[in-house]
Amino acid sequence: MEILIGIAAGTLTSLSMLPQLIKVIKEKDVQALSPVMILVLLAGVSLWIVYGIMKSEWPIIISNAFSVLVNATLLIYYCIFKE
Amino acid sequence: MEILIGIAAGTLTSLSMLPQLIKVIKEKDVQALSPVMILVLLAGVSLWIVYGIMKSEWPIIISNAFSVLVNATLLIYYCIFKE
Repeated sequence: MEILIGIAAGTLTSLSMLPQLIKVIKEKDVQALSPVMILVLLAGVSLWIVYGIMKSEWPIIISNAFSVLVNATLLIYYCIFKE
Repeated sequence: MEILIGIAAGTLTSLSMLPQLIKVIKEKDVQALSPVMILVLLAGVSLWIVYGIMKSEWPIIISNAFSVLVNATLLIYYCIFKE
């Protein structure tokens, strides 16, 4: 039961930035976004990957690798669309 | 060593939404923010609290309780400032 809740929780937190990325690509508006938030989140999920590799926990590695991908893309779009 | 990296990773991902909340309060602008992102993230961190309670893991409970607080506040400000 814990494992199911853990997987659901990890999937939701990993997927959460995807709608934000889609909105930014669609509307080309990043004015209200905090670049510090994106950078701190990128650092955090990158460290989770290191943690996952050290503990050989694949669900942690995969879900956070996905988050790094989404957040790195968001950061690139932030730099492109920021006035 | 793993535990230190885990704590650092958890602290960073928990703190990441704080600069976003501060920016929103300061600038009263939520136009570029995705409400779906906030809602999915809220659901995810809430489930992490359930997971932490089931496993009696206090670091998970505390860091995600902090995230729920920040994200719930962000959601309230989103509703207030959204045109």
